[in-house]
Amino acid sequence: MSYFSFELIHTSKRSRARLGRIHTPHGIIDTPNFVAVGTNGTLKALDNVLVNNLGLQLMFANTYHLLVHPGVETVKAAGGLHQFINRPYPIITDSGGFQVFSLAYGTVKEELKSKGMKRHTEAVLKISEEGVLFRSYRDGSPLLLTPESSIQAQKSLGADIIIPFDELPPYHIDPAKLTASLHRTHRWEERSLIEHMKNPQNQAIYAVIHGGINQALRTQSCSILSNLPFDGFAIGGSLGKNRQEMIDMLTYTVPLLPSGAPNHLLGIGDLESVDACIRLGIDTFDSSHPTRCARHGLLFVTSMSGTGHVKILQTKYKNYHEPIDSMCECYTCIHYTAAYIHHLFKAKEMTGLALASLHNLHFMIKLMKNYQRAILEDKV
Amino acid sequence: MSYFSFELIHTSKRSRARLGRIHTPHGIIDTPNFVAVGTNGTLKALDNVLVNNLGLQLMFANTYHLLVHPGVETVKAAGGLHQFINRPYPIITDSGGFQVFSLAYGTVKEELKSKGMKRHTEAVLKISEEGVLFRSYRDGSPLLLTPESSIQAQKSLGADIIIPFDELPPYHIDPAKLTASLHRTHRWEERSLIEHMKNPQNQAIYAVIHGGINQALRTQSCSILSNLPFDGFAIGGSLGKNRQEMIDMLTYTVPLLPSGAPNHLLGIGDLESVDACIRLGIDTFDSSHPTRCARHGLLFVTSMSGTGHVKILQTKYKNYHEPIDSMCECYTCIHYTAAYIHHLFKAKEMTGLALASLHNLHFMIKLMKNYQRAILEDKV
Repeated sequence: MSYFSFELIHTSKRSRARLGRIHTPHGIIDTPNFVAVGTNGTLKALDNVLVNNLGLQLMFANTYHLLVHPGVETVKAAGGLHQFINRPYPIITDSGGFQVFSLAYGTVKEELKSKGMKRHTEAVLKISEEGVLFRSYRDGSPLLLTPESSIQAQKSLGADIIIPFDELPPYHIDPAKLTASLHRTHRWEERSLIEHMKNPQNQAIYAVIHGGINQALRTQSCSILSNLPFDGFAIGGSLGKNRQEMIDMLTYTVPLLPSGAPNHLLGIGDLESVDACIRLGIDTFDSSHPTRCARHGLLFVTSMSGTGHVKILQTKYKNYHEPIDSMCECYTCIHYTAAYIHHLFKAKEMTGLALASLHNLHFMIKLMKNYQRAILEDKV
Repeated sequence: MSYFSFELIHTSKRSRARLGRIHTPHGIIDTPNFVAVGTNGTLKALDNVLVNNLGLQLMFANTYHLLVHPGVETVKAAGGLHQFINRPYPIITDSGGFQVFSLAYGTVKEELKSKGMKRHTEAVLKISEEGVLFRSYRDGSPLLLTPESSIQAQKSLGADIIIPFDELPPYHIDPAKLTASLHRTHRWEERSLIEHMKNPQNQAIYAVIHGGINQALRTQSCSILSNLPFDGFAIGGSLGKNRQEMIDMLTYTVPLLPSGAPNHLLGIGDLESVDACIRLGIDTFDSSHPTRCARHGLLFVTSMSGTGHVKILQTKYKNYHEPIDSMCECYTCIHYTAAYIHHLFKAKEMTGLALASLHNLHFMIKLMKNYQRAILEDKV
């Protein structure tokens, strides 16, 4: 399909890391790459023109949130999500499934902290073969999310890459239930694909590989979904309770994906995981981690020993009248000192959150360029 | 004094409105002009480089807040406030008196709502001829603000224009107490001036005219303070309980100020008051009103009938896929629709607050240019 294609440019001789290029109707995504999350159609504290100018090649937006507000009809009337949010570059939307099932089961993180399962009866009204009926957190009105309605919503939003509706089972689930959930997810993904193919609308659709941390199920999921005409493959579901479980899962899962298609790891973006998953052959990964860290005053820096963190609220920065990172060329580091950013955080000024977010986003974009170069040179 | 001067370019034939130019070590301030308030060394939700590029000619910063955090020693070590906050253009600081006496007496607004006088014993430890001893809201440590210490703090901050320490008496005060307060304020201002003149440091110092809404006392204050070598005259103290009381007071006060010096109205910035006070001969006025309005979703627009407000949270903007103001050339209106800004506000995204603040600030800057042109053409 001419509107969407993947070029595999080089695979490292040192690892499974690969350099590629995804072509979309709104431009190129060099891979491996970081996908920043703009839940409501904006990165928190930054505006899209600024983000566009920073060079972010792919932005993630959440269908669930946009369904609840402003509603897909408003976005469609604006001419689609690119127009509505003023982003002329590639966008990927999810199906809404993740948020709906987080409401039902809690996130894996909440579950591991025993905080899950509390909101089920309030927010999620019914889960059936058809889909999920839930209450809008905004006004309490009932919303039905099915494979078909999710795809239709994503058609109205008009992102370059869309994602089929899937079930996100909890981490603690017995194998029989996980298997049943996996099969329903496969049925839902096929229904999503069929709905999509009625009107491809120059959008690409990525399957979501499930199976938790069960190798047999992940294998089965790769086998079933890669036999369907998806344009790419996202790895979703439970990625394990820690980084090692995720790495183990990716080690056996990524090689089962078609090498000619792009892949995506859902919801991962901490620097250690990024480094590991790039070496395992992941092309793109989305996460709000870098911008969330920024808002908590955790700023990414490059030091002699690699990458590190500056905790800008620490007293030692009160009189540090130098940039956060003297090597950094971002707007924040060019124009402001660590002492000033420290002051803005102490004074609880939003400006500090914006400048910190901008710094971490610039860091991620530059880091990805460095990985791309390193792969070409077989250094990763 | 070569580092600070005021050029009176034209006085309108139609009102007392005057067009002027204030020369400072960090550049020119065309008058009349709006002075945006960056309490902690930043406008809320915007960064200074952006604000510099917007063309804001004078920024207000609050000595009290900067004393409490990061402390004047940190700002001094950074090379002064201009360096610390990265603003190469003019800055004015206040004495800290306003905040300290607001802690003691409440603001006039709180007082009129009977909310004042509550925090006295907690925050303000002692008011005497020497000055005010109060507790830092940050860490509870005692801080002494006197005419001398306020000026020394403002020397460390290094703004282009500084303000003597004064007392802000409550609106409801008997004439004898107001007179006593006025005399102490005059003594404090003279002590401030003496302290300043020990080391002028290329800073200008504006007197603060007091006297509440008592014509005899305002007259006395103008007479006493204009006989001292101040570089300009701010009008402070209680400006009355409503706009008409302020206009009445300005009508008799402004003509008593030396016409060869710039004047400033403290804390006023709503559009109706701005229009009135420009016609009464006010040169500059500071207010957080335009940026505070922005954060509450109240956006200033120009309509056929004059200036107006858009309440961006109103449902009618949900599907308004046009700029907030189609005539506006600000970053926000060029890049984003009212529907998107509405969505950002509904979704409680900080990005909306920044884009709205930018719009209102641009509006004020352009409005001031329009007033300047209109005065030259005797239209105001």
